[in-house]
Amino acid sequence: MINIAVLGYGTVGSGVVEVIRTNKEQIGRRAGDEIRVKYVLDLREFPGDPVQDVLVHDFDTIAGDPEVDIVVEVMGGFEPAHTFAKRALEAGKSVCTSNKAMVAKFGAELLEIAREKNVNFMFEASCGGGIPIIRALNGSLTADVIDQVAGILNGTTNYMLYRMRVEGSDFGTALKEAQEKGYAEADPTADVDGHDARRKIAILSSIAYGGYMDAEEVYTEGIRDITPEDMLYAEQMGMRIKLLAVSRQMPDGVCAALVAPFLVHAENPLFAVNDVFNAVFVHGNMLGDAMFYGSGAGKLPTASAVVADVIEEAQHLHEHIPCNWGEEKLELQDPQEVDSLFFVRVTGKTREEIEAAFGKGCEFVSCPSLSGETGVITPRMTHREYYAAAEKIGGVISMIRIKD
Amino acid sequence: MINIAVLGYGTVGSGVVEVIRTNKEQIGRRAGDEIRVKYVLDLREFPGDPVQDVLVHDFDTIAGDPEVDIVVEVMGGFEPAHTFAKRALEAGKSVCTSNKAMVAKFGAELLEIAREKNVNFMFEASCGGGIPIIRALNGSLTADVIDQVAGILNGTTNYMLYRMRVEGSDFGTALKEAQEKGYAEADPTADVDGHDARRKIAILSSIAYGGYMDAEEVYTEGIRDITPEDMLYAEQMGMRIKLLAVSRQMPDGVCAALVAPFLVHAENPLFAVNDVFNAVFVHGNMLGDAMFYGSGAGKLPTASAVVADVIEEAQHLHEHIPCNWGEEKLELQDPQEVDSLFFVRVTGKTREEIEAAFGKGCEFVSCPSLSGETGVITPRMTHREYYAAAEKIGGVISMIRIKD
Repeated sequence: MINIAVLGYGTVGSGVVEVIRTNKEQIGRRAGDEIRVKYVLDLREFPGDPVQDVLVHDFDTIAGDPEVDIVVEVMGGFEPAHTFAKRALEAGKSVCTSNKAMVAKFGAELLEIAREKNVNFMFEASCGGGIPIIRALNGSLTADVIDQVAGILNGTTNYMLYRMRVEGSDFGTALKEAQEKGYAEADPTADVDGHDARRKIAILSSIAYGGYMDAEEVYTEGIRDITPEDMLYAEQMGMRIKLLAVSRQMPDGVCAALVAPFLVHAENPLFAVNDVFNAVFVHGNMLGDAMFYGSGAGKLPTASAVVADVIEEAQHLHEHIPCNWGEEKLELQDPQEVDSLFFVRVTGKTREEIEAAFGKGCEFVSCPSLSGETGVITPRMTHREYYAAAEKIGGVISMIRIKD
Repeated sequence: MINIAVLGYGTVGSGVVEVIRTNKEQIGRRAGDEIRVKYVLDLREFPGDPVQDVLVHDFDTIAGDPEVDIVVEVMGGFEPAHTFAKRALEAGKSVCTSNKAMVAKFGAELLEIAREKNVNFMFEASCGGGIPIIRALNGSLTADVIDQVAGILNGTTNYMLYRMRVEGSDFGTALKEAQEKGYAEADPTADVDGHDARRKIAILSSIAYGGYMDAEEVYTEGIRDITPEDMLYAEQMGMRIKLLAVSRQMPDGVCAALVAPFLVHAENPLFAVNDVFNAVFVHGNMLGDAMFYGSGAGKLPTASAVVADVIEEAQHLHEHIPCNWGEEKLELQDPQEVDSLFFVRVTGKTREEIEAAFGKGCEFVSCPSLSGETGVITPRMTHREYYAAAEKIGGVISMIRIKD
């Protein structure tokens, strides 16, 4: 019997209890022993719910019980999640979590404590919900030097962009719809402004490149400025607008990382990732292109990933599994020096004026239903060069980067 | 220092040596020790190639050398691959392989020997080339009961169908093109008749469902009968024709498995898998839909997967990692009883006659450029019912199943 404690009986926490109950037999067989939920920590009461029998309100009960082998942190937020995770590891218990904010900020510290205590700290559910991308990077693609990661890592914004595309609706309408469906929170900032995706790309990059990427340093734009007119141009060009979180590592070890809306070509496997689905594209120097796709959020897919961590931790109770997340901080290239192709909508300028600003090799796009403006795909240039040119010419309505 | 022997210096074998040389530092760090290619076994000589220094022609040299920890079998075919793999395991060496024919036939036996000898038998590269799908099923999606696997598992046929679609060419032309590009062998039977995909779905199903699926029992059709006219109908319906290898397990444990061309809807993530790429779609009872995408063949992607096995075996030299492939044979449903939607092209019949044969609820498709025939999507029915109806009405030009 392996005893676990679940911290937080919200969406993911109740999902974890449900997954363990529903797939009890298979999970026990895989883990090598029965998994028993000995405690659920929550400040609330749940009268009538079977969880009431194992409900506790004080973390000390869990930290002080030597029978508890694994602590599942699914409360979210920095505190008290971080303190509880740290105390559990220090007490010699393995910890797993779906909490990307905590992992992005304290992952390196918690991994180090896990290593010292010969237990494990796992966070498969922190990125891409049910997609087993952390395990793929950490334990499967081990023969490769990974040099690029690009993901649709936020289901809420992918759903909103999908609805804006198929319905022609604007940002506000799509947000309202996402909130009604329960995909977006009352305060949607973390999703629509890209902070959620930023934390996830920092976590994935830390593991992919074997260092530590500081999420706070990742240049981030959200989707608030995307309009129905941008969608019309995308359609016209046979591309789709996606909020991508991308990073790459150059041969000298320096990384570039960015969260922003991108135009994605039809040939790119990320093109077809619709609705609330997430996907992570990875490029390895031997493997070439690979992509992992699945439910990026939702109670049961996320809980499935958490329980997969519980199973692996149960198989290795007092044996630390090395994580490729390194201690050395990854150096990030100045976002101004990162190069890209840019799609720009310009009003009141001739093609000659546009080429004079953005250089020879501009490709022009006209959208029949939008008059008085010109769409242009610039030649490859750095952000610094782009912003200088945009300022020089004036009249720029919007800019969206184009994914290579 | 961990010593390995590579059996076969063909495409994959030379790729394995190249991956180990190119990513030497990272691989050593991941494996916990330097990986050294001590022997390469091949009947040929390779004068001028550095491999010549470690080349041997007799397997006894390898089997009898206690310094060899891991044997990489990349010769292909049943013999002597099977005998060599067995002897290596019996000598207490871990084995990994890209040889799907051997794994599909002897996987259960070799896994059992590995378990007895407390070593490992791994075969990530046998399915989907560089896609880490075996590891995902075996070690990542462990909290789920997997009830469906559907894959584009053969790069050659996916390339051919892709070319037929975009160029309007026929089977013969597409095959010739694939052969010229080196994607298809002189004898293309294993690819175009579906035998390669059949072996792979049997391997994946064995691990997904925790039993043993006999590849020989999987009903299989290839792509020889697909015509440019079929492609026109697919285009008309907004679908694409893919050679899919599909299986599912019913709650009573009985499985259905099938390799055949399918029409795939645009909403299905497999729709966008083009060229020589492979993809594996998996459905779990908690996870929902997930898909893994990547290079299904090719020297380096396949070698990358082989070397990932080498690394995991190096990390667990004398510690057997359980594999979900079970000993109990999976019972397969009679292919005649498997149900599906069928797209059928019928000539010389009225809609009334077609509905009389296939039942109410037929959906008719007309393809402007093809006269004298009618396209019809039947209601859901078993294969037995379909064949009975097709025989009754006569005039059937072609039939392609539609993926749910």
